[in-house]
Amino acid sequence: MIDDVIITPLKIINVPGGDVFHAMKKNDSGFAGFGEAYFSTIEPGIIKAWKRHQNMTLNLIVPHGKIRFIIFDDRATDTGKVQEIILSRDNYCRLTVPPMVWMGFQGVATENSMLLNIASLSHDPEESDKKEISEIIFDWSLER
Amino acid sequence: MIDDVIITPLKIINVPGGDVFHAMKKNDSGFAGFGEAYFSTIEPGIIKAWKRHQNMTLNLIVPHGKIRFIIFDDRATDTGKVQEIILSRDNYCRLTVPPMVWMGFQGVATENSMLLNIASLSHDPEESDKKEISEIIFDWSLER
Repeated sequence: MIDDVIITPLKIINVPGGDVFHAMKKNDSGFAGFGEAYFSTIEPGIIKAWKRHQNMTLNLIVPHGKIRFIIFDDRATDTGKVQEIILSRDNYCRLTVPPMVWMGFQGVATENSMLLNIASLSHDPEESDKKEISEIIFDWSLER
Repeated sequence: MIDDVIITPLKIINVPGGDVFHAMKKNDSGFAGFGEAYFSTIEPGIIKAWKRHQNMTLNLIVPHGKIRFIIFDDRATDTGKVQEIILSRDNYCRLTVPPMVWMGFQGVATENSMLLNIASLSHDPEESDKKEISEIIFDWSLER
């Protein structure tokens, strides 16, 4: 729905003793180079928002728990466009987030959740912008 | 202890609402290119052994649970050398495994454990060799 946002269903391979979960191959759609991989955890109900990367493409996978992602795109218009997706093992997809859109996420499991970001650039605090959660109008309540 | 096996302590960054766990940056020691990232899970007590990659360098991180890794190196001598390490959030390190050594791993948490492999090559079944667990003599019992 938002330009350059890609949602790619990923395979879960059943293996006796423990399954294998695909994340990303270098020839996959959305891959924009490897800069860094890191995990971010989020507690139940907690919201981390908003952050925008100027140059980094994010590739986000949720191997544990359940995370709701909100993308806000004001590249073309001030009013902006919103896209929402909830990822977990039950909706096991990779979410590709292009540079210059705002992103926030919320832990929506009863336990802590975890995302893996396969980022196209290594962490550089100069490369990202932040806004307070109240600076972008979005109703984060889950009962709407 | 085994040549080219690297154990790199990783940072856990305390963040309100959910910590961030480093995994790998492109300039880190042990990085041998990005081919694929995938998760492998392992149930309590289960052993997956033995596998050897001919060309792939593995970079293994355990963000959830606790996994015991055994590396068996018969590159120089048939009797071989063994190296063992247990990784978890409590011993949060990256384990770099070079090509041409045998590797096995065991779930040693009470719940399922999960590893991330940042592999230098995309999956290719022709590129790895397998042995039955009995083909390499190792006492997997935890009480020794």
